[in-house]
Amino acid sequence: MRPIITLLTDFGTADGYVAEMKGVIFSAVPEATVVDLSHDLPAQDIECARLAVARYWRRFPAGTVHVVVVDPGVGSSRAPLAVSSDDRFLVGPDNGVLSPSLLAAGSRAVALPVPNSAAPTFHGRDVFAPAAAHLSVGMPLDALGGTLAEPVVRRTPEAHRAPDGSIVGEVIAIDRFGNAVTNLIAPRGGRVEIAGRTVPIVRTYSDVPTGEVTALVGSIGFVEVAQRDGRAADALGVRRGAPVVLRAPRA
Amino acid sequence: MRPIITLLTDFGTADGYVAEMKGVIFSAVPEATVVDLSHDLPAQDIECARLAVARYWRRFPAGTVHVVVVDPGVGSSRAPLAVSSDDRFLVGPDNGVLSPSLLAAGSRAVALPVPNSAAPTFHGRDVFAPAAAHLSVGMPLDALGGTLAEPVVRRTPEAHRAPDGSIVGEVIAIDRFGNAVTNLIAPRGGRVEIAGRTVPIVRTYSDVPTGEVTALVGSIGFVEVAQRDGRAADALGVRRGAPVVLRAPRA
Amino acid sequence: MRPIITLLTDFGTADGYVAEMKGVIFSAVPEATVVDLSHDLPAQDIECARLAVARYWRRFPAGTVHVVVVDPGVGSSRAPLAVSSDDRFLVGPDNGVLSPSLLAAGSRAVALPVPNSAAPTFHGRDVFAPAAAHLSVGMPLDALGGTLAEPVVRRTPEAHRAPDGSIVGEVIAIDRFGNAVTNLIAPRGGRVEIAGRTVPIVRTYSDVPTGEVTALVGSIGFVEVAQRDGRAADALGVRRGAPVVLRAPRA
Repeated sequence: MRPIITLLTDFGTADGYVAEMKGVIFSAVPEATVVDLSHDLPAQDIECARLAVARYWRRFPAGTVHVVVVDPGVGSSRAPLAVSSDDRFLVGPDNGVLSPSLLAAGSRAVALPVPNSAAPTFHGRDVFAPAAAHLSVGMPLDALGGTLAEPVVRRTPEAHRAPDGSIVGEVIAIDRFGNAVTNLIAPRGGRVEIAGRTVPIVRTYSDVPTGEVTALVGSIGFVEVAQRDGRAADALGVRRGAPVVLRAPRA
Repeated sequence: MRPIITLLTDFGTADGYVAEMKGVIFSAVPEATVVDLSHDLPAQDIECARLAVARYWRRFPAGTVHVVVVDPGVGSSRAPLAVSSDDRFLVGPDNGVLSPSLLAAGSRAVALPVPNSAAPTFHGRDVFAPAAAHLSVGMPLDALGGTLAEPVVRRTPEAHRAPDGSIVGEVIAIDRFGNAVTNLIAPRGGRVEIAGRTVPIVRTYSDVPTGEVTALVGSIGFVEVAQRDGRAADALGVRRGAPVVLRAPRA
Repeated sequence: MRPIITLLTDFGTADGYVAEMKGVIFSAVPEATVVDLSHDLPAQDIECARLAVARYWRRFPAGTVHVVVVDPGVGSSRAPLAVSSDDRFLVGPDNGVLSPSLLAAGSRAVALPVPNSAAPTFHGRDVFAPAAAHLSVGMPLDALGGTLAEPVVRRTPEAHRAPDGSIVGEVIAIDRFGNAVTNLIAPRGGRVEIAGRTVPIVRTYSDVPTGEVTALVGSIGFVEVAQRDGRAADALGVRRGAPVVLRAPRA
C-alpha cells in the first residue's frame, strides 16, 4: 500500500513551518505521498478546520493518514491525538478538529506522548508529523499511545423546529465565494429567511438572474444562501452564527 | 505510464472543496500524481484561467490530464468538457477556460454526462474529478461522452495596426508583481505608450534604476510594462483592458 | 533513489508561472516528487526566503533538490547558482537566499550558464527548473557549471551584549500568527523589552491569559514575542528590525 498523508493547517506557507513538517515526513518515509489540503485556514479557527475535515476525511482511500493542525492550545495540557476511524487515520490536537472521525462508529483515539525534545510551540513538526509517518507505514495505533477515553467532540449546531413549524438554524460558514452555508436541511425545497429577506431554494446559481440572492442545497446537503455572480454574505451583511429560518414550500 | 493530474481552480483551499476533489481522485487512482497548479485564481475569472492554461498545458508530459475548474455556470446547461489535444487531456466547463487546447490542430472535445447524483453546484468533485481519474488510467476520450462540435473558444484580444503605423493593443493581465501584461508583440523593441506615458522596451527589470517604469518582452513573448522594485500597474493606475500603443524603435 | 524537488518562490500561483516550472520539471523527470513549500513569500523578499530556507533545507532527506526563486535581479549579472551542501542540493539566484546552505561546512557552489533561449525575466522556468531536474537524477554539480568562489552570503543579524549585561537584538521576522521572531537566544529564560514593554519568557502561549503579550523560545531556538489568541506584532506595533533587549532572569 502506498502511504498517503494529507495536511491541513492554519500555518500559511511563507514562514517555513509547513516545509519543516514535510521535511520530517519525507525523512521518515521517503516514499510517502504528501497531499496539501490547505494551509490557509483562518488562524486558530477550530470550527473551520472541523467543517473541512467533515468534508474530506472519508473521501480518501482506506489507509490515508490525515494530519490536522489548528492548535491554539499547543504546548498546554491538551492532548495530541491519533485516531483510527473507518480505516483512515487522523492526527491532530484534542480540541475538536478531528470530531467528524471521532463521531463515526468504531473510532478509537490515543493520546500521543510529547517527547522532551519537542518544541512547546510546534507539535505539528515534533509530534504530529512523526506520528503520521509512523501510521502511514503501518505502525498500529496502540503502539503510538494510550487510549484516550473522552476526546473533545464538537458538533455542527443543530437546527430546531419552531412552534409555527418552521426550522430555525444558523449560518455555520462563509465560503470563498461568499456563500453562507447554513445547518438547514431541505429535501423538499422551500424558502429561507435571512437578514430580513426571504429567498426561494433553487437548484443552482444560474437559475436566477445575475445579482439575485437565492438559496440552494449545497454539495454536502446543507442549504446555502448564494448570490449569482456575487457574494451573498457581503450583500446580506451576514456572518457565521447569523440566524436563518426555513419555511416549507407552499402547498 | 505514471498518471499526472494537475488541478487549477478558483476554490481557495480553506473550505475543503479541493480536498474533496483530491479524495475522489486518489480513491479512484491511488497511484495518481496530483499536482496543484493553483487554487487562488480570482473567483469566477474565466479569462485569468484561460491565460494560465495557455502558459502551462503543453509544458507537461504527454498523457497529463489537466483539470480546470473556474465555473460560474456550474449546474446550468453549459456542458462539462473533456478535451484531447496534442497528447494531453483537459477537463473543465465549456466556458472558454480550455480554449488554448481547443485551438490546437487535431483537438477533440466530448461533453461529459452529468450523473443524477452530481451536486448541481460542485461538478469539480462529481463530474470533472472522476473524468480526470478515468482519463489518467487510459480510458479513451470517446468512452467518456459524445463529441461536442463547437465548444466555446475565447481568444486573447488581438492588437491591430493604426493608420500611423503604431500597434494598438491592451493590457490583458496584471500579474502578482504588478506587471501589466499586454497583447503586444515587439520582436524589434520600440516604445510603449500607456496611461499617458511613453516607456522604452528594455531587456530585463534591472536594466533601469529602482522605481523606474519600463517595458520588456515577457516570458511568453508579450510586452509587459513593469516597474523596477515596484508595481507598474499601481504606479500607472492601469487595469486589465487598459489601452497600450507600441511604436517602432527610432531608426 | 526517488528524486524529491522542493519549490519555494514568491510567484503566487494564479499567473501560471509556477505551473510552467512544474511542467518543465515533470517533462524532464516524469517520476519526480515535486513538493510545494511556498509560493506566497512576500514579493522579492530575499530575507524572508533566507529564513525559510534556514528552517527546512536540512530537514529533507539526503539527495533532495531545493529550488528557491525570489529573484529581483533576474536577468541581470547576478549569477544563477547551484549548491551542494550536506548531501542536499539547492538552486536559486546568487542573492543570499541560499545562504544557510552556503554557510555549512563543505558546501560548494557553481554558476549556472544562462542559455540564449532563456527569458531574461523567468530563470525559474528556463534555468533553475532544468538544473533541478538534472540534479535530481544524479547529474554531478560540476557538470552544471563552473565553481563560484564567493557566492553572496547573508546572515541573520547578530545580537550583541550591552555594557549593562543585557543582550540587544532585533525582530527578524513577523510570522503568520503575528509572532515577532527575534535574534535573541535565551537558554535560561529572562525578560524581553520590546516597544516600551517588558515581558517575561514563558514556555508556551497558554501559560498566559488570553490577550496577554509574552515571550517564549520558538521552534528554531530564537525568542519570539507572542500574544495569546492575538497578534503580538500588531498589539505592539512592531515590524522587522524593531529593537529588542534581553535581560537575565532575576537571581
